Amino acid sequence: MARKNAVYAQSGGVTSVINASAYGVIMAAREASFIDEVYGGYDGINGVLTEKLIDLGQEPPEAIEALRHTPAGALGSARRKLQDLEKNRAEFQRIIEVLAAHDVGYFFYNGGNDSMDTTAKLSRFAAENDYPLQVIGIPKTIDNDLPITDNSPGFGSVAKYNAVSILEGSLDTESMHRDSTKVFVLETMGRNAGWIAASTGLAQRSERDGPHLILLPEVPFDKEKFLAAVQELVSRLGYCAVAVSEGTKDGEGKFLSEVGGQDAFGHTQLGGAGQFIQDLVNSELKLEHPSSTFPTF
Amino acid sequence: MARKNAVYAQSGGVTSVINASAYGVIMAAREASFIDEVYGGYDGINGVLTEKLIDLGQEPPEAIEALRHTPAGALGSARRKLQDLEKNRAEFQRIIEVLAAHDVGYFFYNGGNDSMDTTAKLSRFAAENDYPLQVIGIPKTIDNDLPITDNSPGFGSVAKYNAVSILEGSLDTESMHRDSTKVFVLETMGRNAGWIAASTGLAQRSERDGPHLILLPEVPFDKEKFLAAVQELVSRLGYCAVAVSEGTKDGEGKFLSEVGGQDAFGHTQLGGAGQFIQDLVNSELKLEHPSSTFPTF
Repeated sequence: MARKNAVYAQSGGVTSVINASAYGVIMAAREASFIDEVYGGYDGINGVLTEKLIDLGQEPPEAIEALRHTPAGALGSARRKLQDLEKNRAEFQRIIEVLAAHDVGYFFYNGGNDSMDTTAKLSRFAAENDYPLQVIGIPKTIDNDLPITDNSPGFGSVAKYNAVSILEGSLDTESMHRDSTKVFVLETMGRNAGWIAASTGLAQRSERDGPHLILLPEVPFDKEKFLAAVQELVSRLGYCAVAVSEGTKDGEGKFLSEVGGQDAFGHTQLGGAGQFIQDLVNSELKLEHPSSTFPTF
Repeated sequence: MARKNAVYAQSGGVTSVINASAYGVIMAAREASFIDEVYGGYDGINGVLTEKLIDLGQEPPEAIEALRHTPAGALGSARRKLQDLEKNRAEFQRIIEVLAAHDVGYFFYNGGNDSMDTTAKLSRFAAENDYPLQVIGIPKTIDNDLPITDNSPGFGSVAKYNAVSILEGSLDTESMHRDSTKVFVLETMGRNAGWIAASTGLAQRSERDGPHLILLPEVPFDKEKFLAAVQELVSRLGYCAVAVSEGTKDGEGKFLSEVGGQDAFGHTQLGGAGQFIQDLVNSELKLEHPSSTFPTF
Protein backbone atom coordinates (compact mmCIF):
# COMPACT_ATOMS: atom_id res chain seq x y z
CA MET A 1 0.00 0.00 0.00
CA ALA A 2 1.37 3.40 -0.96
CA ARG A 3 2.05 5.68 1.98
CA LYS A 4 0.01 8.86 2.14
CA ASN A 5 0.46 12.09 4.05
CA ALA A 6 -1.78 13.25 6.90
CA VAL A 7 -3.17 16.61 7.97
CA TYR A 8 -4.01 17.46 11.58
CA ALA A 9 -5.92 20.65 12.48
CA GLN A 10 -7.41 22.20 15.63
CA SER A 11 -10.83 23.78 15.74
CA GLY A 12 -13.08 25.81 18.04
CA GLY A 13 -12.26 27.03 21.53
CA VAL A 14 -8.96 25.64 22.75
CA THR A 15 -8.79 23.45 25.85
CA SER A 16 -5.99 22.76 28.33
CA VAL A 17 -5.20 19.48 26.61
CA ILE A 18 -5.81 20.04 22.89
CA ASN A 19 -2.06 20.04 22.25
CA ALA A 20 -1.78 16.69 24.04
CA SER A 21 -4.16 15.36 21.38
CA ALA A 22 -1.89 16.87 18.72
CA TYR A 23 1.06 15.08 20.33
CA GLY A 24 -0.87 11.80 20.28
CA VAL A 25 -1.73 12.09 16.59
CA ILE A 26 1.81 13.03 15.60
CA MET A 27 3.44 10.20 17.57
CA ALA A 28 0.93 7.61 16.36
CA ALA A 29 1.31 8.78 12.75
CA ARG A 30 5.09 8.34 12.99
CA GLU A 31 4.60 4.71 14.01
CA ALA A 32 2.02 4.04 11.29
CA SER A 33 3.42 2.20 8.27
CA PHE A 34 0.81 3.78 5.99
CA ILE A 35 1.46 7.44 6.91
CA ASP A 36 4.39 9.44 5.55
CA GLU A 37 4.41 13.11 6.56
CA VAL A 38 2.12 14.88 9.03
CA TYR A 39 1.12 18.45 8.21
CA GLY A 40 -0.54 20.83 10.65
CA GLY A 41 -3.28 23.15 9.46
CA TYR A 42 -2.50 26.74 10.51
CA ASP A 43 -5.67 28.06 12.21
CA GLY A 44 -7.65 24.90 11.68
CA ILE A 45 -9.55 24.42 8.46
CA ASN A 46 -8.49 27.93 7.40
CA GLY A 47 -4.96 26.58 6.97
CA VAL A 48 -6.20 23.96 4.54
CA LEU A 49 -8.32 26.42 2.57
CA THR A 50 -5.42 28.87 2.27
CA GLU A 51 -2.77 26.17 1.90
CA LYS A 52 -0.98 27.25 5.06
CA LEU A 53 0.28 23.85 6.14
CA ILE A 54 3.06 23.34 8.67
CA ASP A 55 5.39 20.39 8.05
CA LEU A 56 5.48 18.96 11.57
CA GLY A 57 8.34 16.64 10.61
CA GLN A 58 10.56 19.73 10.43
CA GLU A 59 9.82 20.69 14.02
CA PRO A 60 12.53 19.82 16.56
CA PRO A 61 11.69 16.74 18.67
CA GLU A 62 11.69 18.90 21.83
CA ALA A 63 8.89 21.05 20.39
CA ILE A 64 6.79 17.97 19.64
CA GLU A 65 7.52 16.51 23.08
CA ALA A 66 6.60 19.86 24.71
CA LEU A 67 3.16 19.77 23.07
CA ARG A 68 1.95 17.58 25.92
CA HIS A 69 2.28 20.55 28.27
CA THR A 70 1.91 23.49 25.87
CA PRO A 71 -1.09 25.72 26.66
CA ALA A 72 -3.60 27.20 24.17
CA GLY A 73 -3.74 25.96 20.58
CA ALA A 74 -0.24 25.37 19.22
CA LEU A 75 -1.35 25.49 15.59
CA GLY A 76 -4.01 28.18 15.97
CA SER A 77 -7.68 27.42 15.74
CA ALA A 78 -10.78 28.17 13.67
CA ARG A 79 -14.20 29.48 14.52
CA ARG A 80 -15.20 28.99 10.87
CA LYS A 81 -17.93 26.41 10.37
CA LEU A 82 -18.14 24.96 6.88
CA GLN A 83 -21.45 25.68 5.23
CA ASP A 84 -23.75 22.94 3.99
CA LEU A 85 -22.46 21.08 0.97
CA GLU A 86 -25.34 22.34 -1.15
CA LYS A 87 -24.62 25.95 -0.27
CA ASN A 88 -20.90 25.98 -0.82
CA ARG A 89 -19.49 23.09 -2.85
CA ALA A 90 -16.56 25.31 -3.88
CA GLU A 91 -15.23 25.32 -0.31
CA PHE A 92 -15.20 21.52 -0.13
CA GLN A 93 -13.75 21.34 -3.64
CA ARG A 94 -10.95 23.63 -2.55
CA ILE A 95 -10.16 21.47 0.50
CA ILE A 96 -9.90 18.35 -1.66
CA GLU A 97 -7.69 20.19 -4.16
CA VAL A 98 -5.26 21.23 -1.42
CA LEU A 99 -5.23 17.78 0.15
CA ALA A 100 -4.62 16.18 -3.25
CA ALA A 101 -1.79 18.63 -4.01
CA HIS A 102 -0.05 17.41 -0.86
CA ASP A 103 -0.90 13.76 -1.36
CA VAL A 104 -2.98 13.65 1.79
CA GLY A 105 -4.96 10.49 2.51
CA TYR A 106 -5.71 11.13 6.21
CA PHE A 107 -7.38 14.15 7.72
CA PHE A 108 -7.57 14.47 11.52
CA TYR A 109 -9.88 17.20 12.76
CA ASN A 110 -9.71 18.04 16.48
CA GLY A 111 -12.82 19.78 17.71
CA GLY A 112 -16.36 19.77 19.05
CA ASN A 113 -19.76 19.13 17.53
CA ASP A 114 -19.36 21.63 14.68
CA SER A 115 -16.02 20.08 13.77
CA MET A 116 -17.48 16.58 13.83
CA ASP A 117 -20.16 17.90 11.49
CA THR A 118 -17.40 19.19 9.20
CA THR A 119 -15.62 15.83 9.22
CA ALA A 120 -18.85 14.05 8.27
CA LYS A 121 -19.50 16.45 5.39
CA LEU A 122 -15.93 16.28 4.13
CA SER A 123 -15.90 12.50 4.29
CA ARG A 124 -19.09 12.31 2.25
CA PHE A 125 -17.88 14.85 -0.29
CA ALA A 126 -14.57 13.02 -0.78
CA ALA A 127 -16.35 9.70 -1.31
CA GLU A 128 -18.77 11.22 -3.80
CA ASN A 129 -15.85 12.66 -5.73
CA ASP A 130 -13.80 9.47 -5.64
CA TYR A 131 -10.99 11.03 -3.62
CA PRO A 132 -9.58 8.41 -1.25
CA LEU A 133 -9.64 10.13 2.16
CA GLN A 134 -9.93 8.85 5.70
CA VAL A 135 -11.46 11.62 7.82
CA ILE A 136 -11.01 11.13 11.55
CA GLY A 137 -12.66 13.35 14.15
CA ILE A 138 -10.74 13.77 17.40
CA PRO A 139 -13.03 14.79 20.25
CA LYS A 140 -12.42 18.11 22.05
CA THR A 141 -14.87 19.94 24.22
CA ILE A 142 -14.96 21.26 27.76
CA ASP A 143 -18.75 20.77 27.82
CA ASN A 144 -18.53 16.98 27.45
CA ASP A 145 -21.60 17.08 25.22
CA LEU A 146 -20.21 15.30 22.15
CA PRO A 147 -22.71 12.63 21.10
CA ILE A 148 -21.60 9.01 21.56
CA THR A 149 -18.36 9.90 23.41
CA ASP A 150 -18.39 9.10 27.10
CA ASN A 151 -15.75 11.53 28.27
CA SER A 152 -14.13 14.12 26.02
CA PRO A 153 -10.55 15.43 26.32
CA GLY A 154 -10.92 18.97 27.68
CA PHE A 155 -13.69 18.12 30.11
CA GLY A 156 -11.42 16.63 32.76
CA SER A 157 -9.33 19.76 33.27
CA VAL A 158 -12.41 22.00 33.40
CA ALA A 159 -14.08 19.64 35.87
CA LYS A 160 -10.99 19.78 38.07
CA TYR A 161 -10.76 23.58 37.87
CA ASN A 162 -14.40 24.07 38.84
CA ALA A 163 -14.37 21.43 41.57
CA VAL A 164 -11.28 23.05 43.11
CA SER A 165 -12.86 26.51 42.80
CA ILE A 166 -16.05 25.55 44.62
CA LEU A 167 -14.01 23.69 47.23
CA GLU A 168 -11.97 26.84 47.88
CA GLY A 169 -15.06 29.04 48.03
CA SER A 170 -16.96 26.58 50.21
CA LEU A 171 -14.16 26.16 52.74
CA ASP A 172 -13.71 29.93 53.00
CA THR A 173 -17.47 30.45 53.42
CA GLU A 174 -17.73 27.67 56.00
CA SER A 175 -14.93 29.13 58.08
CA MET A 176 -16.47 32.61 58.00
CA HIS A 177 -20.21 32.01 57.90
CA ARG A 178 -20.94 32.57 61.58
CA ASP A 179 -20.05 36.24 61.19
CA SER A 180 -20.20 36.74 57.41
CA THR A 181 -21.56 35.48 54.07
CA LYS A 182 -23.71 32.34 54.39
CA VAL A 183 -24.38 31.48 50.75
CA PHE A 184 -21.62 31.04 48.17
CA VAL A 185 -22.53 30.92 44.47
CA LEU A 186 -20.28 29.68 41.65
CA GLU A 187 -21.42 30.10 38.05
CA THR A 188 -19.97 27.53 35.69
CA MET A 189 -19.82 27.32 31.91
CA GLY A 190 -22.11 24.94 30.02
CA ARG A 191 -24.76 26.68 27.94
CA ASN A 192 -26.59 23.49 26.96
CA ALA A 193 -25.08 20.74 29.06
CA GLY A 194 -24.73 20.44 32.83
CA TRP A 195 -21.61 18.30 32.96
CA ILE A 196 -19.37 21.13 34.15
CA ALA A 197 -21.76 22.26 36.89
CA ALA A 198 -22.27 18.61 37.88
CA SER A 199 -18.52 18.03 38.06
CA THR A 200 -18.27 20.47 40.98
CA GLY A 201 -19.91 17.65 42.96
CA LEU A 202 -16.50 15.96 42.96
CA ALA A 203 -15.52 18.45 45.69
CA GLN A 204 -18.06 17.10 48.17
CA ARG A 205 -16.37 14.56 50.42
CA SER A 206 -18.94 14.74 53.22
CA GLU A 207 -22.38 16.24 53.73
CA ARG A 208 -20.90 19.40 55.21
CA ASP A 209 -18.76 20.11 52.14
CA GLY A 210 -19.98 22.16 49.20
CA PRO A 211 -21.50 22.11 46.70
CA HIS A 212 -24.81 21.47 48.44
CA LEU A 213 -26.95 22.49 45.47
CA ILE A 214 -26.19 22.15 41.75
CA LEU A 215 -28.40 23.84 39.15
CA LEU A 216 -28.32 22.28 35.68
CA PRO A 217 -29.63 23.36 32.27
CA GLU A 218 -31.39 19.99 32.04
CA VAL A 219 -33.57 20.63 35.11
CA PRO A 220 -36.00 23.60 35.03
CA PHE A 221 -35.26 26.01 37.90
CA ASP A 222 -37.93 25.97 40.60
CA LYS A 223 -37.59 29.16 42.61
CA GLU A 224 -39.63 28.12 45.66
CA LYS A 225 -37.98 24.73 45.92
CA PHE A 226 -34.54 26.29 45.57
CA LEU A 227 -35.10 28.97 48.21
CA ALA A 228 -36.53 26.39 50.63
CA ALA A 229 -33.45 24.22 50.09
CA VAL A 230 -31.07 27.13 50.73
CA GLN A 231 -32.96 28.09 53.87
CA GLU A 232 -32.91 24.52 55.15
CA LEU A 233 -29.18 24.14 54.48
CA VAL A 234 -28.31 27.43 56.15
CA SER A 235 -30.42 26.45 59.17
CA ARG A 236 -28.82 23.02 59.43
CA LEU A 237 -25.20 23.57 58.34
CA GLY A 238 -24.89 27.30 58.85
CA TYR A 239 -23.95 27.94 55.24
CA CYS A 240 -24.38 26.57 51.75
CA ALA A 241 -22.55 26.52 48.42
CA VAL A 242 -24.40 26.58 45.11
CA ALA A 243 -23.06 25.71 41.64
CA VAL A 244 -25.18 27.11 38.82
CA SER A 245 -24.67 26.42 35.15
CA GLU A 246 -24.81 29.49 32.90
CA GLY A 247 -27.41 27.60 30.87
CA THR A 248 -29.91 27.05 33.69
CA LYS A 249 -33.47 27.92 32.56
CA ASP A 250 -36.74 28.62 34.32
CA GLY A 251 -39.94 26.59 33.85
CA GLU A 252 -40.71 28.44 30.63
CA GLY A 253 -37.34 27.67 29.08
CA LYS A 254 -35.92 31.15 29.61
CA PHE A 255 -32.27 31.48 30.72
CA LEU A 256 -31.95 32.75 34.31
CA SER A 257 -29.56 35.35 32.92
CA GLU A 258 -32.44 36.68 30.81
CA VAL A 259 -35.05 36.55 33.56
CA GLY A 260 -33.12 39.07 35.64
CA GLY A 261 -33.59 39.85 39.28
CA GLN A 262 -34.21 42.91 41.39
CA ASP A 263 -31.78 44.61 43.69
CA ALA A 264 -32.65 45.85 47.18
CA PHE A 265 -34.12 49.00 45.64
CA GLY A 266 -36.37 47.15 43.21
CA HIS A 267 -34.21 47.95 40.18
CA THR A 268 -33.99 45.28 37.52
CA GLN A 269 -30.62 43.56 37.57
CA LEU A 270 -28.91 42.16 34.53
CA GLY A 271 -26.08 39.70 34.67
CA GLY A 272 -25.35 36.02 34.51
CA ALA A 273 -27.06 33.10 36.18
CA GLY A 274 -24.78 33.46 39.23
CA GLN A 275 -25.78 37.09 39.67
CA PHE A 276 -29.43 36.09 39.36
CA ILE A 277 -29.09 33.47 42.10
CA GLN A 278 -27.19 35.87 44.35
CA ASP A 279 -29.83 38.60 43.93
CA LEU A 280 -32.62 36.09 44.52
CA VAL A 281 -31.11 34.82 47.78
CA ASN A 282 -30.40 38.34 49.00
CA SER A 283 -33.84 39.69 48.23
CA GLU A 284 -35.99 36.69 49.20
CA LEU A 285 -34.26 35.18 52.20
CA LYS A 286 -33.70 37.12 55.37
CA LEU A 287 -30.24 35.79 56.12
CA GLU A 288 -28.11 37.75 58.52
CA HIS A 289 -25.45 38.41 55.91
CA PRO A 290 -25.90 38.63 52.15
CA SER A 291 -24.71 35.98 49.73
CA SER A 292 -21.62 36.47 47.67
CA THR A 293 -20.69 35.37 44.19
CA PHE A 294 -17.22 34.13 43.31
CA PRO A 295 -14.71 35.71 43.33
CA THR A 296 -15.95 38.37 45.74
CA PHE A 297 -16.32 36.12 48.78
CA MET B 1 9.53 37.63 84.66
CA ALA B 2 6.27 35.78 85.16
CA ARG B 3 5.09 33.92 82.10
CA LYS B 4 1.80 35.05 80.61
CA ASN B 5 -0.60 33.41 78.19
CA ALA B 6 -1.25 34.58 74.63
CA VAL B 7 -4.34 34.84 72.44
CA TYR B 8 -4.23 34.60 68.67
CA ALA B 9 -7.30 35.41 66.53
CA GLN B 10 -8.10 35.73 62.83
CA SER B 11 -10.15 38.54 61.37
CA GLY B 12 -11.80 39.63 58.14
CA GLY B 13 -11.80 37.76 54.82
CA VAL B 14 -9.57 34.72 54.98
CA THR B 15 -6.57 34.37 52.65
CA SER B 16 -4.72 31.34 51.31
CA VAL B 17 -2.01 31.77 53.89
CA ILE B 18 -3.71 33.06 57.04
CA ASN B 19 -3.24 29.68 58.72
CA ALA B 20 0.47 29.82 57.91
CA SER B 21 0.55 33.00 60.01
CA ALA B 22 -1.26 31.09 62.77
CA TYR B 23 1.40 28.38 62.55
CA GLY B 24 4.14 31.00 62.79
CA VAL B 25 2.66 32.59 65.92
CA ILE B 26 2.10 29.24 67.65
CA MET B 27 5.60 27.95 66.94
CA ALA B 28 7.26 31.22 67.94
CA ALA B 29 5.18 31.41 71.13
CA ARG B 30 6.32 27.90 72.11
CA GLU B 31 9.93 29.00 71.86
CA ALA B 32 9.36 32.22 73.79
CA SER B 33 10.44 32.05 77.43
CA PHE B 34 7.85 34.65 78.43
CA ILE B 35 4.76 32.93 76.91
CA ASP B 36 3.02 30.02 78.56
CA GLU B 37 -0.16 28.86 76.78
CA VAL B 38 -1.50 30.03 73.40
CA TYR B 39 -5.27 30.30 73.04
CA GLY B 40 -7.08 30.72 69.74
CA GLY B 41 -10.09 33.02 69.52
CA TYR B 42 -13.02 31.17 67.93
CA ASP B 43 -14.32 33.46 65.16
CA GLY B 44 -11.83 36.20 65.79
CA ILE B 45 -12.65 38.85 68.36
CA ASN B 46 -16.07 37.22 68.82
CA GLY B 47 -14.31 34.34 70.54
CA VAL B 48 -12.76 36.69 73.07
CA LEU B 49 -16.02 38.56 73.72
CA THR B 50 -17.92 35.28 74.25
CA GLU B 51 -15.00 33.54 75.99
CA LYS B 52 -14.80 30.86 73.32
CA LEU B 53 -11.08 30.25 73.47
CA ILE B 54 -9.39 27.18 72.05
CA ASP B 55 -6.40 25.83 73.97
CA LEU B 56 -4.02 25.29 71.06
CA GLY B 57 -1.63 23.38 73.31
CA GLN B 58 -4.22 20.58 73.39
CA GLU B 59 -4.20 20.21 69.61
CA PRO B 60 -2.17 17.29 68.24
CA PRO B 61 1.20 18.34 66.76
CA GLU B 62 0.06 17.08 63.31
CA ALA B 63 -2.85 19.55 63.34
CA ILE B 64 -0.54 22.44 64.17
CA GLU B 65 1.96 21.30 61.52
CA ALA B 66 -0.88 20.99 58.96
CA LEU B 67 -1.87 24.64 59.50
CA ARG B 68 0.81 25.64 57.02
CA HIS B 69 -1.27 24.07 54.24
CA THR B 70 -4.78 24.27 55.69
CA PRO B 71 -7.16 26.38 53.56
CA ALA B 72 -9.70 28.94 54.83
CA GLY B 73 -9.58 30.21 58.43
CA ALA B 74 -8.82 27.37 60.82
CA LEU B 75 -10.18 29.23 63.84
CA GLY B 76 -13.07 30.98 62.10
CA SER B 77 -13.05 34.69 61.44
CA ALA B 78 -14.88 37.90 62.30
CA ARG B 79 -16.45 40.63 60.22
CA ARG B 80 -17.20 42.52 63.43
CA LYS B 81 -15.40 45.83 63.72
CA LEU B 82 -15.08 47.17 67.22
CA GLN B 83 -16.80 50.51 67.67
CA ASP B 84 -14.97 53.61 68.77
CA LEU B 85 -13.88 53.55 72.41
CA GLU B 86 -16.16 56.45 73.25
CA LYS B 87 -19.18 54.68 71.79
CA ASN B 88 -18.73 51.28 73.36
CA ARG B 89 -16.38 51.13 76.31
CA ALA B 90 -18.26 48.05 77.58
CA GLU B 91 -16.99 45.99 74.65
CA PHE B 92 -13.36 46.84 75.40
CA GLN B 93 -13.98 46.33 79.10
CA ARG B 94 -15.33 42.85 78.37
CA ILE B 95 -12.27 41.96 76.28
CA ILE B 96 -9.92 42.98 79.08
CA GLU B 97 -11.98 41.01 81.61
CA VAL B 98 -11.77 37.83 79.52
CA LEU B 99 -8.06 38.30 78.87
CA ALA B 100 -7.44 38.90 82.58
CA ALA B 101 -9.46 35.81 83.54
CA HIS B 102 -7.12 33.73 81.37
CA ASP B 103 -3.96 35.53 82.47
CA VAL B 104 -3.32 36.80 78.95
CA GLY B 105 -0.49 39.26 78.44
CA TYR B 106 -0.11 38.96 74.68
CA PHE B 107 -2.83 39.47 72.08
CA PHE B 108 -2.05 38.69 68.41
CA TYR B 109 -4.67 39.91 65.94
CA ASN B 110 -4.33 38.71 62.34
CA GLY B 111 -6.17 40.92 59.88
CA GLY B 112 -6.38 43.97 57.64
CA ASN B 113 -6.80 47.68 58.23
CA ASP B 114 -9.90 47.34 60.41
CA SER B 115 -8.14 44.78 62.57
CA MET B 116 -5.08 46.98 62.92
CA ASP B 117 -7.46 49.73 64.02
CA THR B 118 -8.85 47.35 66.64
CA THR B 119 -5.39 46.47 67.92
CA ALA B 120 -4.53 50.17 68.29
CA LYS B 121 -7.74 50.86 70.23
CA LEU B 122 -7.34 47.82 72.45
CA SER B 123 -3.71 48.68 73.19
CA ARG B 124 -4.69 52.20 74.20
CA PHE B 125 -7.60 51.03 76.33
CA ALA B 126 -5.45 48.48 78.17
CA ALA B 127 -2.79 51.08 78.93
CA GLU B 128 -5.37 53.57 80.18
CA ASN B 129 -6.77 50.90 82.48
CA ASP B 130 -3.39 49.72 83.72
CA TYR B 131 -3.79 46.24 82.30
CA PRO B 132 -0.39 44.98 81.10
CA LEU B 133 -1.04 43.85 77.53
CA GLN B 134 1.14 43.62 74.45
CA VAL B 135 -1.11 43.90 71.40
CA ILE B 136 0.50 42.73 68.16
CA GLY B 137 -1.13 43.16 64.75
CA ILE B 138 -0.24 40.51 62.18
CA PRO B 139 -0.77 41.77 58.64
CA LYS B 140 -3.28 39.97 56.39
CA THR B 141 -4.80 41.34 53.23
CA ILE B 142 -5.02 40.30 49.61
CA ASP B 143 -5.19 43.95 48.56
CA ASN B 144 -1.69 44.75 49.87
CA ASP B 145 -2.97 48.13 51.02
CA LEU B 146 -1.94 47.96 54.68
CA PRO B 147 -0.15 51.19 55.58
CA ILE B 148 3.58 50.94 56.31
CA THR B 149 3.85 47.24 55.31
CA ASP B 150 5.64 46.62 52.06
CA ASN B 151 4.14 43.27 51.17
CA SER B 152 1.34 41.64 53.11
CA PRO B 153 0.81 37.87 53.56
CA GLY B 154 -2.20 37.04 51.37
CA PHE B 155 -1.17 39.30 48.50
CA GLY B 156 1.37 36.91 47.03
CA SER B 157 -1.07 34.08 46.44
CA VAL B 158 -3.67 36.39 44.92
CA ALA B 159 -1.02 37.97 42.69
CA LYS B 160 0.02 34.52 41.49
CA TYR B 161 -3.59 33.42 40.88
CA ASN B 162 -4.40 36.51 38.81
CA ALA B 163 -1.11 36.49 36.89
CA VAL B 164 -1.67 32.83 35.98
CA SER B 165 -5.29 33.56 35.00
CA ILE B 166 -4.40 36.38 32.61
CA LEU B 167 -1.56 34.30 31.21
CA GLU B 168 -3.98 31.45 30.46
CA GLY B 169 -6.54 33.79 28.93
CA SER B 170 -3.93 35.69 26.92
CA LEU B 171 -2.33 32.57 25.46
CA ASP B 172 -5.74 31.17 24.48
CA THR B 173 -6.74 34.48 22.90
CA GLU B 174 -3.43 34.82 21.07
CA SER B 175 -3.74 31.34 19.60
CA MET B 176 -7.30 31.95 18.42
CA HIS B 177 -7.40 35.67 17.59
CA ARG B 178 -7.01 35.36 13.82
CA ASP B 179 -10.43 33.71 13.59
CA SER B 180 -12.00 34.62 16.94
CA THR B 181 -12.01 36.98 19.93
CA LYS B 182 -9.33 39.68 19.78
CA VAL B 183 -9.68 41.37 23.16
CA PHE B 184 -9.52 39.49 26.45
CA VAL B 185 -10.63 41.23 29.66
CA LEU B 186 -9.88 40.06 33.21
CA GLU B 187 -11.50 41.85 36.12
CA THR B 188 -9.51 41.67 39.34
CA MET B 189 -10.37 42.46 42.93
CA GLY B 190 -9.08 45.61 44.60
CA ARG B 191 -11.75 48.20 45.36
CA ASN B 192 -9.35 50.90 46.47
CA ALA B 193 -5.89 49.64 45.58
CA GLY B 194 -4.46 48.53 42.26
CA TRP B 195 -1.87 46.07 43.54
CA ILE B 196 -3.82 42.98 42.42
CA ALA B 197 -4.50 44.34 38.93
CA ALA B 198 -0.87 45.47 38.69
CA SER B 199 0.37 42.03 39.74
CA THR B 200 -1.04 40.53 36.54
CA GLY B 201 1.90 42.30 34.87
CA LEU B 202 4.08 39.48 36.25
CA ALA B 203 2.68 37.34 33.43
CA GLN B 204 4.23 39.49 30.70
CA ARG B 205 7.56 37.98 29.67
CA SER B 206 7.76 39.71 26.30
CA GLU B 207 5.90 42.48 24.49
CA ARG B 208 3.58 39.98 22.79
CA ASP B 209 2.39 38.50 26.11
CA GLY B 210 -0.56 39.84 28.01
CA PRO B 211 -1.49 41.84 29.91
CA HIS B 212 -0.97 44.73 27.49
CA LEU B 213 -3.14 47.18 29.41
CA ILE B 214 -3.76 47.41 33.16
CA LEU B 215 -6.46 49.70 34.54
CA LEU B 216 -5.98 50.80 38.16
CA PRO B 217 -8.19 52.58 40.70
CA GLU B 218 -5.37 55.09 41.19
CA VAL B 219 -5.48 56.28 37.55
CA PRO B 220 -8.70 57.88 36.24
CA PHE B 221 -10.04 55.94 33.23
CA ASP B 222 -9.67 57.84 29.96
CA LYS B 223 -12.05 56.29 27.44
CA GLU B 224 -10.55 57.75 24.27
CA LYS B 225 -7.00 56.95 25.28
CA PHE B 226 -7.98 53.41 26.25
CA LEU B 227 -9.85 52.69 23.01
CA ALA B 228 -6.97 54.07 20.94
CA ALA B 229 -4.54 51.83 22.81
CA VAL B 230 -6.70 48.73 22.25
CA GLN B 231 -7.04 49.55 18.56
CA GLU B 232 -3.28 50.06 18.20
CA LEU B 233 -2.49 46.79 20.01
CA VAL B 234 -4.97 44.79 17.93
CA SER B 235 -3.54 46.33 14.74
CA ARG B 236 0.04 45.59 15.76
CA LEU B 237 -0.17 42.29 17.69
CA GLY B 238 -3.50 40.99 16.44
CA TYR B 239 -4.97 40.80 19.92
CA CYS B 240 -4.76 42.33 23.36
CA ALA B 241 -5.35 41.39 27.00
CA VAL B 242 -6.66 43.88 29.53
CA ALA B 243 -6.62 43.63 33.34
CA VAL B 244 -9.10 45.95 35.02
CA SER B 245 -9.41 46.49 38.75
CA GLU B 246 -12.97 46.40 40.09
CA GLY B 247 -12.22 49.78 41.65
CA THR B 248 -11.32 51.61 38.44
CA LYS B 249 -13.05 55.02 38.25
CA ASP B 250 -13.76 57.53 35.53
CA GLY B 251 -12.52 61.14 35.51
CA GLU B 252 -15.32 62.18 37.86
CA GLY B 253 -14.48 59.55 40.45
CA LYS B 254 -17.38 57.24 39.55
CA PHE B 255 -16.74 53.48 39.50
CA LEU B 256 -16.85 52.04 35.95
CA SER B 257 -19.30 49.47 37.32
CA GLU B 258 -21.63 52.36 38.16
CA VAL B 259 -21.16 54.23 34.90
CA GLY B 260 -22.63 51.33 32.93
CA GLY B 261 -22.37 50.75 29.22
CA GLN B 262 -24.76 50.15 26.39
CA ASP B 263 -25.30 46.91 24.54
CA ALA B 264 -25.61 46.65 20.75
CA PHE B 265 -29.27 47.68 21.03
CA GLY B 266 -28.59 50.78 23.11
CA HIS B 267 -29.85 49.22 26.33
CA THR B 268 -28.07 50.24 29.50
CA GLN B 269 -25.86 47.44 30.78
CA LEU B 270 -25.16 46.83 34.42
CA GLY B 271 -22.30 44.75 35.70
CA GLY B 272 -18.77 44.99 36.92
CA ALA B 273 -15.81 46.91 35.56
CA GLY B 274 -14.91 43.96 33.28
CA GLN B 275 -18.38 43.94 31.75
CA PHE B 276 -18.12 47.69 31.22
CA ILE B 277 -14.80 47.36 29.38
CA GLN B 278 -16.10 44.47 27.28
CA ASP B 279 -19.25 46.39 26.27
CA LEU B 280 -17.19 49.49 25.50
CA VAL B 281 -14.80 47.63 23.20
CA ASN B 282 -17.66 45.82 21.46
CA SER B 283 -19.72 48.93 20.87
CA GLU B 284 -16.98 51.44 20.04
CA LEU B 285 -14.41 49.46 18.10
CA LYS B 286 -15.21 47.72 14.87
CA LEU B 287 -13.17 44.60 15.48
CA GLU B 288 -13.96 41.56 13.40
CA HIS B 289 -14.90 39.51 16.45
CA PRO B 290 -16.24 40.77 19.76
CA SER B 291 -14.25 40.83 22.95
CA SER B 292 -14.78 38.29 25.63
CA THR B 293 -14.60 38.50 29.41
CA PHE B 294 -13.10 35.75 31.53
CA PRO B 295 -14.16 33.01 31.89
CA THR B 296 -16.21 32.95 28.69
CA PHE B 297 -13.30 33.16 26.22
